[in-house]
Amino acid sequence: MSVPARGSRRQEGREKVTGATRFTADLEHAGLLHVHLVLAHTASARIRGIETGRARSSPGVVDVVTARDLPELDSAGPDLPLALERVFYVGQPVVAVVAETEAAAADAALLVEVDYEDAPPVVDASLAMTDQSPLVLGEHEAADDEDASIHGASAAADDAPEERPRNVTGVAHLRRGDAERALEQADVVIRETYRFAGAHHSFMEPHVAVVRPEPDGGLTIWSSTQGPFVIRDSVAALVDLPPHKVRVVPMAVGGGFGGKIELLEPLLALLALRLRRPVRLSLVRSHEFVVGHPAPAAQFALELGARQDGTLVALRARYHYDNGATAGWHAGLTANFLGGTYRIPSFDIRGLEVATNKTPADAYRAPGATQAYFALESAIDELAVRLQIDPIELRLRNVSHEGDLAADGSRWPQIASVEVLEEAKRHPLYTTPLGPDEAIGIALGAWGGARTPSAAGCRVEPDGTVAVTVGSPDISGTATGLALIAAEAFGVEPERVRVDVADTVNAPFGATSSGSQVTYSLGGAVYEAAQEARRQLLEIATEELEAAPEDLDIVDGRVAVKGAPNRSVEITHLVKLSTDFMGRYKPIQASGRSAVQEASPMFTVHIARVRFDPETGAYHLTGHAAIQDVGHAINPPEIEGQIHGGATQALGRALGEQLVYDGDGQLRTGSFLDYEVPAADQIPNIDVKLIEMPSPVGPLGAKGVGEPPAIPATAALANAVSRAAGVRVRSVPIDRSLLAGPHRPNDGEGAPKNGR
Amino acid sequence: MSVPARGSRRQEGREKVTGATRFTADLEHAGLLHVHLVLAHTASARIRGIETGRARSSPGVVDVVTARDLPELDSAGPDLPLALERVFYVGQPVVAVVAETEAAAADAALLVEVDYEDAPPVVDASLAMTDQSPLVLGEHEAADDEDASIHGASAAADDAPEERPRNVTGVAHLRRGDAERALEQADVVIRETYRFAGAHHSFMEPHVAVVRPEPDGGLTIWSSTQGPFVIRDSVAALVDLPPHKVRVVPMAVGGGFGGKIELLEPLLALLALRLRRPVRLSLVRSHEFVVGHPAPAAQFALELGARQDGTLVALRARYHYDNGATAGWHAGLTANFLGGTYRIPSFDIRGLEVATNKTPADAYRAPGATQAYFALESAIDELAVRLQIDPIELRLRNVSHEGDLAADGSRWPQIASVEVLEEAKRHPLYTTPLGPDEAIGIALGAWGGARTPSAAGCRVEPDGTVAVTVGSPDISGTATGLALIAAEAFGVEPERVRVDVADTVNAPFGATSSGSQVTYSLGGAVYEAAQEARRQLLEIATEELEAAPEDLDIVDGRVAVKGAPNRSVEITHLVKLSTDFMGRYKPIQASGRSAVQEASPMFTVHIARVRFDPETGAYHLTGHAAIQDVGHAINPPEIEGQIHGGATQALGRALGEQLVYDGDGQLRTGSFLDYEVPAADQIPNIDVKLIEMPSPVGPLGAKGVGEPPAIPATAALANAVSRAAGVRVRSVPIDRSLLAGPHRPNDGEGAPKNGR
Repeated sequence: MSVPARGSRRQEGREKVTGATRFTADLEHAGLLHVHLVLAHTASARIRGIETGRARSSPGVVDVVTARDLPELDSAGPDLPLALERVFYVGQPVVAVVAETEAAAADAALLVEVDYEDAPPVVDASLAMTDQSPLVLGEHEAADDEDASIHGASAAADDAPEERPRNVTGVAHLRRGDAERALEQADVVIRETYRFAGAHHSFMEPHVAVVRPEPDGGLTIWSSTQGPFVIRDSVAALVDLPPHKVRVVPMAVGGGFGGKIELLEPLLALLALRLRRPVRLSLVRSHEFVVGHPAPAAQFALELGARQDGTLVALRARYHYDNGATAGWHAGLTANFLGGTYRIPSFDIRGLEVATNKTPADAYRAPGATQAYFALESAIDELAVRLQIDPIELRLRNVSHEGDLAADGSRWPQIASVEVLEEAKRHPLYTTPLGPDEAIGIALGAWGGARTPSAAGCRVEPDGTVAVTVGSPDISGTATGLALIAAEAFGVEPERVRVDVADTVNAPFGATSSGSQVTYSLGGAVYEAAQEARRQLLEIATEELEAAPEDLDIVDGRVAVKGAPNRSVEITHLVKLSTDFMGRYKPIQASGRSAVQEASPMFTVHIARVRFDPETGAYHLTGHAAIQDVGHAINPPEIEGQIHGGATQALGRALGEQLVYDGDGQLRTGSFLDYEVPAADQIPNIDVKLIEMPSPVGPLGAKGVGEPPAIPATAALANAVSRAAGVRVRSVPIDRSLLAGPHRPNDGEGAPKNGR
Repeated sequence: MSVPARGSRRQEGREKVTGATRFTADLEHAGLLHVHLVLAHTASARIRGIETGRARSSPGVVDVVTARDLPELDSAGPDLPLALERVFYVGQPVVAVVAETEAAAADAALLVEVDYEDAPPVVDASLAMTDQSPLVLGEHEAADDEDASIHGASAAADDAPEERPRNVTGVAHLRRGDAERALEQADVVIRETYRFAGAHHSFMEPHVAVVRPEPDGGLTIWSSTQGPFVIRDSVAALVDLPPHKVRVVPMAVGGGFGGKIELLEPLLALLALRLRRPVRLSLVRSHEFVVGHPAPAAQFALELGARQDGTLVALRARYHYDNGATAGWHAGLTANFLGGTYRIPSFDIRGLEVATNKTPADAYRAPGATQAYFALESAIDELAVRLQIDPIELRLRNVSHEGDLAADGSRWPQIASVEVLEEAKRHPLYTTPLGPDEAIGIALGAWGGARTPSAAGCRVEPDGTVAVTVGSPDISGTATGLALIAAEAFGVEPERVRVDVADTVNAPFGATSSGSQVTYSLGGAVYEAAQEARRQLLEIATEELEAAPEDLDIVDGRVAVKGAPNRSVEITHLVKLSTDFMGRYKPIQASGRSAVQEASPMFTVHIARVRFDPETGAYHLTGHAAIQDVGHAINPPEIEGQIHGGATQALGRALGEQLVYDGDGQLRTGSFLDYEVPAADQIPNIDVKLIEMPSPVGPLGAKGVGEPPAIPATAALANAVSRAAGVRVRSVPIDRSLLAGPHRPNDGEGAPKNGR
């Protein structure tokens, strides 16, 4: 298969750069009402009463709505649009104030008084599992794990029901061989505990949605969403409408990263139906921090056994996720990463989902993988230090190859695990000699890649534009990549192709934009649709030019007979012939469909290089490299951009991003003053090296791209800092105070700083 | 082919009946501006100057726009959005006042002063053709005939350039044999002149459109239009945008009848781009009468020769259309009707398009046919009276059959010309004996039927709804008919099908809803799309049920193995399997396309029965029947409704509807006080008899329906009145003052009142 010209500007780039893009909050709607939420300020309480009288009489207020004003819903308590009898976390929406302006709604929200009967909150996940702990969720709430269905690799199943500690809503358990015995027999065992803080996505655009009631009883929903069809189906079920009466218009997404699938829409739908006017809710930043569902914190106790030559023999892992007030779904994904990345003959991996009184956790780019690989790659690095083996060599000795067993007992398909490691070994960042107080850290990461059946439409516009319609929002340049695929399939320049993301009434069904799946799942459908559209076009040209389709070619906006450049006809003319009054030919209108069955897992290695100041404990990331197998790179500059962003996010998890809760369950890092998003001077130019091992499955050989860069950078930086400081970092973000001075532990001392 | 259950309620009927439908004028748009037009009050003048100062300073006014404020356009003078140097008719838009409210715009419009230098207007079409007449159009304006492309039968070509009288913009000329000689040899010749007044469509909803500038430089246009793709292409060309940047949202049409394809949209597009705000123009009724393009008046001089036994031998026709200030396009269609309906061995038919200083004429339901058949069927009736032959017998003796020559030299395909006449002969309205002062009139009509390539999309919603997407607005129940076609093709109950008319960005290309072409052109595409969607569904079911597709059936929302009712699966489940995360099957997404090449002409006969009062000249239509070949009737109740409406419109043309201009070119019937739309007590219950001769071409055997009922009723009523009054009516609407009293001509006396 030939491949298209490399590199194309984002089709929506100019509008975004010039500020012309209209985001959801920019839309003007006649009669628009604004919603401001009153949030729970306590982490666990019974609601004794709500006093809304003063708020109601505040100027500009149209309605003050509590759960009692809404229809009875069959949702778990923390998932209700508004809290009914109990609150489960600080930040849970309790009252919705609706007013003519945002300011009026916010002012009136201050006048609402909620009378709480506080209960002791469950904040620490480890304490949550003790027998004395209060229960966070009722039985009903603890059984929900359907969110797992829209992310990443397949979940590991429990093989048998087990006795669960208190507040544990789910258990992932994978075993192979006799891990205990193998650990006993190992030459060396790394036994350590690793901690990973929770994080917020920190998208520039907070959650925002507008819902308008339509005269036919339906709803139109404008949302900055990654999953318009998810919203359609859940809102339709919630308000008992047929799905086509819920029109979800996917808007430009100002940062999604897994956090923008559905949040405000159910509440707004209920308010719009109640008030019969369009309603908008745009979270203020302080609300975003506690209402938006963050990435869960995690803690891992690993025992990694190896022979003296570095061959891994066993892994025992005990870990849990602190999911806040929800059932959680990360542990299963994590088990697969821990057990399958390396050839480990014996393992016993057990992960727990723990509920606490915090904002419910959900997906954040590479959910379950960033956490898993921080723990695993830290332990591998510790092993390399202990055995005095080059960390890349150690990984090469153990990493899984095509055909090896994955954790769930299936076999790895084609993977570039060896290739990314070999490339890392050659990378200048790795080979350039270290200066004083410099060190290098490396880490491996992998992502299985999601996939969802998807369809696409294709037609040709009167001006010759090849117009493709899809249903998956473009959160990362996918529309431009899909345009390149369509250009290749149709046989025109990419500038002549346009990809539109249409609303749920008009768009062919498309995957949620998550899990590195859009190009992989939808690309084949776009290819098929564009190819069929080309076939239809050439069918018309065949009659007009009296030549067989195989003798025709598309060149510069014309269909021409090969070798007879004079015998040609403009594409625009052929379109006219197929749309004119009394025209002779059928209009060009094609569909493409795909349902990819096989994964094309993606491997990546990151290299971090740091300079350390032993006096202060300060470190500076002086260089960072990301080597990633992307299959065939459809739009390399865009992929590079995605890797820059993902690596920066994972670096942020080491550098300082964390959700810190106090003993009452209050978020102490709920603003950008306290929540440390990495600043520009903390992130060096990230060198991207693409490995292109074409997928036998993906469109044009492409693999997913989005998740992998957000996986190994946390561990790579932690490993570099550990080696530079001579202090092993086992908790992220990195606590600089531990790297110098009296508290400095000494377990990392003596590690070769270049890893070799 | 099996046919679907007969008769289905309009899918949008409930919303229309309950008032829930939102028409274009009901839409709320943030920041909406309102436009009021200043119209020319003189029929022909040079514009010396326009004084807008006082209007500009009127409260609420945002802008006062003249042609000088708009980009220079390459349009004919009368077609310019605003008049530039000259005005060509009373009612031509000269200035657009834009204000915050409709009232403010209307108030300020009164303050605009236009200084005209009047020129003598050309009002009478016959005088327009004399050498002394001023010229109405410049060369540029007189050459435009592209409007012909969206209507009815094919236009007759001039066989040779001819010397044209003054102000004649086009000539249609068809000849066969030696008509002059044949007329000389005929036993009897009817030589008469027939006049047909111009008419306005009188839709309940006047022209209205909203245009909103989009941040990306594009435009969204909400319009009550029959032809969204026509607007897209013409506005895109006007403002130099790629077609996909012009999104035309087809709104519910409150009556179209050929008059609502494009009118206000170009001006509003220019204003929206100028002001960067959404603008709306909703014509007030008095403006609608002079701005909206009406049906042209026509005049026919016929010489119809026959043998004593009634066999037609020759026709000479000289006629012209009074098109107002445009080039016109009716004459060609008319020539075909005059020359092809009956077997006439020799004819010489010459029709002229005449320009005058009146509002430009355009399409009105059955353009060129209503006029042609009034003249032809009146002459045939006069011949029947003269020869004392039953008028149905006379027609049966001469009417064209399948295989006979049509006027243009082609051969008639399958037609039900004989069948409708035979059915009329048996109709109770025709056979029931006449009371005193009663009479019957009959008339034949035919319509070739337009066709345009069209496409459709089909998918299945999560609730099992079969969703079809099309681009042709539903002005006559076509969406419901298409749903019946899709239900048949998919194999489900019609209630499970929904047909959406999408905007021009999202919809598959669809024919303009005109010319009786939607079901005929688009039905095949819908059938194909639904059939393909069924195939895709059964493909999934085949795997799930382990049965061959041919052993499967769709029953009551499930796919079941034939003969094994227990082996079945819900359609909704199959949809889920093809849209779930990690789903196994491709989503259902189908396209269908059609480009019908052959016409399926439709014949119809109307019977009018009247009671006449010789004292006063008053007559009352006591019964009316419409017998029409519709091919296979897909939705009979809907067809009946269409026939009721069309017949009423054609009856109105005889009863009183007319555009009357005075010598200055001022419209004297520009309100519903003066323009006589038939009242309920003037129209009896119209008895519809459908003849179903299935088309070998149309979907499920369907033929077009919309135009035919609007064709013969005018002549049928005129013939009935002529026979009842004993005074031949040769001009419509009927002038009652000629039917009784001293002015009464006596040429109709002695005619048998029942025609026999």
